[in-house]
Amino acid sequence: MENDLIEKLIGSFMILPGVGYKTAQRYAYHVLSCDKEGVDNLAHTILEAKSSIGLCSVCGGFCQREVCSICSTRSSRLLCVVKDPKDISVMERVKGLNCLYHVLHGCISPLDNKGPEDIRLKELLQRVNSGDFDEVLVATNPDIEGEATAMYISRLLKPFAVKVTRLAQGISMGSDMEYADEVTLSRAVEARREI
Amino acid sequence: MENDLIEKLIGSFMILPGVGYKTAQRYAYHVLSCDKEGVDNLAHTILEAKSSIGLCSVCGGFCQREVCSICSTRSSRLLCVVKDPKDISVMERVKGLNCLYHVLHGCISPLDNKGPEDIRLKELLQRVNSGDFDEVLVATNPDIEGEATAMYISRLLKPFAVKVTRLAQGISMGSDMEYADEVTLSRAVEARREI
Repeated sequence: MENDLIEKLIGSFMILPGVGYKTAQRYAYHVLSCDKEGVDNLAHTILEAKSSIGLCSVCGGFCQREVCSICSTRSSRLLCVVKDPKDISVMERVKGLNCLYHVLHGCISPLDNKGPEDIRLKELLQRVNSGDFDEVLVATNPDIEGEATAMYISRLLKPFAVKVTRLAQGISMGSDMEYADEVTLSRAVEARREI
Repeated sequence: MENDLIEKLIGSFMILPGVGYKTAQRYAYHVLSCDKEGVDNLAHTILEAKSSIGLCSVCGGFCQREVCSICSTRSSRLLCVVKDPKDISVMERVKGLNCLYHVLHGCISPLDNKGPEDIRLKELLQRVNSGDFDEVLVATNPDIEGEATAMYISRLLKPFAVKVTRLAQGISMGSDMEYADEVTLSRAVEARREI
């Protein structure tokens, strides 16, 4: 009887990303063993966040109202296009970057049956068409899907009077050149700058 | 505003074992992105399990009533002593082992300021004293704390007419002898058996 409920708890933890049976079991037994306050707080915060956080009708990021705090208060002619809502918080760490955001909710990925119509490109087109932006910075990941999506967006926005840019690629700060892969290194050479 | 709630969600996920800020952030964003049903199920199951699962008054394992299903239905004169409630499900996987359990809720560990009075040894003494058992199998981990606890229990139960046993140590099934550590190998030699 108690085993059924424990198994149900283990199963429900397995919806978390990268959590298999063993990890879920560890979480479940920990939750049963530790103090009630923290556990109740976890459950109630999940419920509260899930019921009150939706998507901003403008940028598509997470939001508790119709329009998120960035879209409703910030003014900028630079639009940063990201793949997921979490990437907004990543870009917000960049000091001195004052931009608005547009979340695609995915990238073009033919292998996963995800075409241009499955991500928020129509909304991007509308926002750019309104003439509010001078530059669109495509900040998708430097992988195949991210690159393909960036290329697609640059072609899509050709007819408009906006500059379409991409995050620079090169060697990471603090890394060792010896371990940089060839593609990264050759892009770093291509994009070399005078000092 | 939405960021505060997301940060609160991230923070509450960090009560899970081995979950730091990055993993908690990944869980939080996943929870916000995925379908409501699974997430609500997770939260409600946590609340249900936490409120309805307590400890069995006999063995100390997890239980939804006063006495758990094993203690209330099984009859055995073999008592298996384990460290944590989850170890009951580990031992239950052993085919043909028909035993009752006693959960210590920890091991003796002077480094963590955990002495004999901090684990359920008094209850163990009472159960053994009642004369219900012929043998006490100490199934704590083969580490320093587990060994010390096993030694302590064996001395504690000296005055009683019970056999105190310990899980055998040796090389694991399917492992390569080459990679067995010296302590394991020397214990496997000590405990060698005629075939």
